[in-house]
Amino acid sequence: MATQAAPRKAKITVYIAQTLDGFIADSNGKVTFLESYEDTTGEEKPDDCGYAEFYETVGALIMGRTSYELVRGFADWPYKGKMSYVLSTSVIDDMLPDTKCFQIKGQPSVDEQLRNLIAEIEKDLKEGQCIWVMGGGVTIDAFLKANLVDELDIFVLPMMLGSGVPLFPVRGGGASIQSKLTLTRLEKRAKGIARLTYDTKAK
Amino acid sequence: MATQAAPRKAKITVYIAQTLDGFIADSNGKVTFLESYEDTTGEEKPDDCGYAEFYETVGALIMGRTSYELVRGFADWPYKGKMSYVLSTSVIDDMLPDTKCFQIKGQPSVDEQLRNLIAEIEKDLKEGQCIWVMGGGVTIDAFLKANLVDELDIFVLPMMLGSGVPLFPVRGGGASIQSKLTLTRLEKRAKGIARLTYDTKAK
Repeated sequence: MATQAAPRKAKITVYIAQTLDGFIADSNGKVTFLESYEDTTGEEKPDDCGYAEFYETVGALIMGRTSYELVRGFADWPYKGKMSYVLSTSVIDDMLPDTKCFQIKGQPSVDEQLRNLIAEIEKDLKEGQCIWVMGGGVTIDAFLKANLVDELDIFVLPMMLGSGVPLFPVRGGGASIQSKLTLTRLEKRAKGIARLTYDTKAK
Repeated sequence: MATQAAPRKAKITVYIAQTLDGFIADSNGKVTFLESYEDTTGEEKPDDCGYAEFYETVGALIMGRTSYELVRGFADWPYKGKMSYVLSTSVIDDMLPDTKCFQIKGQPSVDEQLRNLIAEIEKDLKEGQCIWVMGGGVTIDAFLKANLVDELDIFVLPMMLGSGVPLFPVRGGGASIQSKLTLTRLEKRAKGIARLTYDTKAK
């Protein structure tokens, strides 16, 4: 009888754009401001901020319900062929193909429920595939609080919104925050976008 | 009779450190977390994040009252020989040498009062000297709203606080925000600090 394989440990990545003042969506939850950063220079290989390369490695996505509803409003679901797990406190009827609702319940702790979700997802991942915690701020924050983020890949847009949905909502602070980060990459991308990549687990 | 010199136009700079999650001080208004980023590598020239070079060009400082009280609590006033203007809604008694209270009144608009302050300061500046809007978030925000900031020089520390005093407080948005920025410098400094410099006036 074959010995059971050790549990796969998939890298959990946050890959997201924010304005310099820290917003990932405007006050109406819209991300239309992102459009002006699409590289339309007509170059043969427009700068996609490493998205294609990153997306290639993604085995599954996790998002909050608000992000799901936002993306669902687009013409096409952009993550076909990869399973997206949608966090919600209530059941969502009529889920799109390649999406699954993960209901957050009153107990056990949210941290434990998220760890269970990750373990569940890891069963279906191929070697080297990562899990993309796509957004929004509340979902990312929950994963940060649970110490479940390995990499933060943040694209700082050269603009300010003044208000909107923050990437990092203000919370009470405390010991569960991943406070020490290691800057592993700093890149100037097209249109004045600064890419800051952090390893949260390095010592 | 000599013609009157054209009004001097001093560059107005925000030079400040923030955590990755956007805080410039902790929930108690303290900046003790900055201490762990002092370069103590023992190098002959430790990385000061360009501070000495920048400070050399500073002709005057502007700060809010909270920042003033914070810095005043240090062993020595660190800005001797340069005039610091302290914004406050009330009169501050017993000002330190090289500091002056600038009282914000009910009228005219805050924007106009800040423009008047700048014009007043510029009279005493030497050619090429800049004005450093030192902090905190409320003061910086007021200058941003009044379109009075030329350069944002931000040092992103590789850490998160979870809560504290934000560099960019959430406000209502609107037309007065300097929303378009030009990334002019992106540098990796000592201890994983990322320096992001923006020109707010470039087209």
